Parts: sequence; C-alpha cells; structure tokens
Amino acid sequence: MIGFVSLVGAGPGDPELLTLRAVRRLREADLVLNDALVQVDLLDLAPNAQRFFVGKRAGRHSIEQDEIHRLMIRGAQRGQRVVRLKCGDPFVLGRGGEEALALEAAGVPYEVVPGISSALAAPALAGIPVTHRGVASAFAVVSGHAASAYEPVLAGLAANSLTLVVLMGLRNRGAIAAHLIARGWPAATRAAIVFGASHRDGGMTWIGDLGSLGEAEFTTELPAVLVIGDVVGLADQIGYARADHLALARS
Amino acid sequence: MIGFVSLVGAGPGDPELLTLRAVRRLREADLVLNDALVQVDLLDLAPNAQRFFVGKRAGRHSIEQDEIHRLMIRGAQRGQRVVRLKCGDPFVLGRGGEEALALEAAGVPYEVVPGISSALAAPALAGIPVTHRGVASAFAVVSGHAASAYEPVLAGLAANSLTLVVLMGLRNRGAIAAHLIARGWPAATRAAIVFGASHRDGGMTWIGDLGSLGEAEFTTELPAVLVIGDVVGLADQIGYARADHLALARS
Repeated sequence: MIGFVSLVGAGPGDPELLTLRAVRRLREADLVLNDALVQVDLLDLAPNAQRFFVGKRAGRHSIEQDEIHRLMIRGAQRGQRVVRLKCGDPFVLGRGGEEALALEAAGVPYEVVPGISSALAAPALAGIPVTHRGVASAFAVVSGHAASAYEPVLAGLAANSLTLVVLMGLRNRGAIAAHLIARGWPAATRAAIVFGASHRDGGMTWIGDLGSLGEAEFTTELPAVLVIGDVVGLADQIGYARADHLALARS
Repeated sequence: MIGFVSLVGAGPGDPELLTLRAVRRLREADLVLNDALVQVDLLDLAPNAQRFFVGKRAGRHSIEQDEIHRLMIRGAQRGQRVVRLKCGDPFVLGRGGEEALALEAAGVPYEVVPGISSALAAPALAGIPVTHRGVASAFAVVSGHAASAYEPVLAGLAANSLTLVVLMGLRNRGAIAAHLIARGWPAATRAAIVFGASHRDGGMTWIGDLGSLGEAEFTTELPAVLVIGDVVGLADQIGYARADHLALARS
C-alpha cells in the first residue's frame, strides 16, 4: 500500500488565498509537513492530520532538507496522504524541485499544487502592478538570500529594463541597491518594501528609492518583498490596499 | 448606493486552482465580466450573476478596454457587486493596473484578488520548476505579444542568467529565439512550450531548444507559455505531470 504526496503552495499567508485544491488536499491529509511562514490554521483545515513543523527560523536549529524528504517518503510508504505545505508557490525559490526529485527517486507518487507566490501577491496587495502598459512589460523575480546567487543575476539585468522583485532580500537590501546603482540603475529608481502582505497581523509598505533602500531601518520581523522599478510609482494612485496596509514611510 | 468591484484572478484554467476568495466573490456577484480564456463554469460558481463576455479573441471583433471600464463602473454605480474575472493574475500582463486606475478615477471602491499566474503554473504543471538550486535562482516573465515590448527587455538580459518565461509569445517564438541567439544565448539552450496548462481539454508540452523553437509547427489553439533555460531539462526527471500532459515532441 503506497500513499501519495502533494507539494502544495499555501500562498502568501491569508487562508482565503489558498486554492480549492489545496484546501481539499489538507482536508483529506493524514500528515502535514509545514513551513515556518505558513499561517493557515491547520487545526481547522486538516482536522485528521498529524502535523509536523519542518520550517526554518532565523536563529533556531532547523530540520535538514534531507530529513523533510525522509518524512514525506516514510509517510507515503506507510500509505499516508501527505501534504507538504509550502509558503507561496512550491517551485518559486522553495526547493520544491528538490522535493519532487527525491520523491521520484523513491518511487513515491506525488503532485504539485501551484500556489500564489508572494513575489506577485505582495506587490499586488500593496497596489503595485508588476507590469503596466507603458511602464513595464516584464518583471524578474530574484532570491536576495545570498550574494553568490543574486549578483550574477543582477549583473545580467540592464538598468530599469523591467520590474525587479526580490524575495528574502531584506537583510541584503543595501548591498542589492548598491550593486544595482553601480550597474547603472539611477539612485532615484522607485523602490518599495512590502512587509507581511496578507499576513494575519496586518502588513505595511515602505516606499522610497534605490538610493534610500539601504538606509531605512525596520524592527518588524514580518516577511518582506522588495519591488524595484517605475511601477512602484503607481502605488500612489492605486490606493485600494487595505487600511491596515499603510505606507510606513515615504522618502 | 454604491457597489463594489473585485478584480479577480481566475488562475490558469482549472477551476480547482481558483482561490477561496475568488469563489466567494463569484458566489456573491451580481455581474461578472469575463475574459476569453476563463474556463470557469460561471453558471455553477456565480448563480445569481448577470454575465458579460468581454474577452478578446484572435480574428473577432473585441470589446474595447474603455468599454470594460465603463461596464464595471456602471455596474458599481447601480449598486452591483461586480467581478471582473481575468485569466491568471490581474496584475501580470493583464491590464489590471489600468482597470484599477479607471475605478480610482471614478471613485468606485474595489479590490484586487490575486490569482495563480500561468507564467508559474504552466511550467509547474509540466514538471519545470522556474527556480532550482544550482540551476536557476531567478526568473523573468516577459510579454511576447509585440516586438516593441519584448525586444528592449530581452536585449537587457544576459544570456542564460535566469529562466525566461514568455507569455503570449507563441506567434513570435521564432523571432524571440533568433533575438536571444543573436544576443549570445546558445542555440542549445533548452526550451519548452507548455500548451493548455490545466486546461479542461488537456495540455501538452513540446520540449526542444532555442535553435528549434522557431521551426516547430503546431496546429493547436490552446494557450501557450514558452519556458527557456536550463531548468527545462528537469522536466525529464520530474515526471509527475498528468498523463494527458504528454510531451508532444522532443528534439
């Protein structure tokens, strides 16, 4: 008897932004392995499942990726319906590809259920369209976690040729801004930091420019998405964002 | 009495990839304005709504963007709950920003409900992670509709520095491939065309390389997403894709 693994994207945080398929998989799950940032109330959505927190948190010892693979595979081999619940979309900087390959190697049947990536939802919820006619017809999404990964990518992008969205880039925002300015992006290029988009504790947006991106200081521990490019200027006009998603500062 | 407009992303096609919020807005809608590619069965999901097809289809006269704005605004001014249902995500090459600005200008309250973009879901459903550790730490999404829009963007991307996803690029795939090769992308760079991801009639994937991208001929009218970069090679190993999502050809 072999079970089944679903690699499920949980979206940016708000449970209402889960897909119908994600909800169905959770409801039928025997085992849920979830990330640190997943805010979904699993007690409600996955009432019959054993739950296992496998997330990484800054400053705490975290479970190794291999151990996540082992838990998924062991569950499926015991006949369980396993949901690996990941923030955003499983294939956007989420190591979902590695998990899929591990399941393939073990001969475990599985699927991928796409979720709404914070790379798109965070700007949208802050009133920033990543593309806009006459302003930007393209965007790039980059990991800001390690200079060794983002520097070759940023070095390959012509200044202001598209909207740049950086995930996991809050800590390195100064270095990222300096790198872009050194590559010809004007220091006046608009930039935003969207904190806690669709987060249950409410979000907020900082709006400034590349020149000030590194200087701004924040004490929040909410997840943050950087958005760089002329589309950020639209946030001044597209004001639907929720009242609790206020501009923290403008410079 | 003023109504409310929801700019709702319908996702890539499969109704199961709608979000809970999208379903709720449809259920409560008085008026739904939907695009050509939206496959959602509105009779089931929006039982009380007047429905208005405002999509664009190749070769047919289509409604103007201004007329869409006028219909949304008129509905809200009559007190209706209006859902503007758009394929994918409203802010990814979907003119959602223009619709938001029109609603702002008219003083109509509105919101944006993010949806799953085909730019991410199509590769995922074909077994292609747009990012993968050691292969690609970034991706770009570009409109392939008009050379005037995509040429400056492609000219600004260093060869093979990230995964390139092109929406609305099937017709111009030869010109896009030639442009990239002329800019230094190797002709052997892997490329895929994902047709009809999550489409009710089933999808299929063509896998080849930049050199052969322009030569391949297709008769299908399914929506197509181009994926260019080394991550395409993972589709050989990540084989979970549905049985009906078969490789059409490999070259």
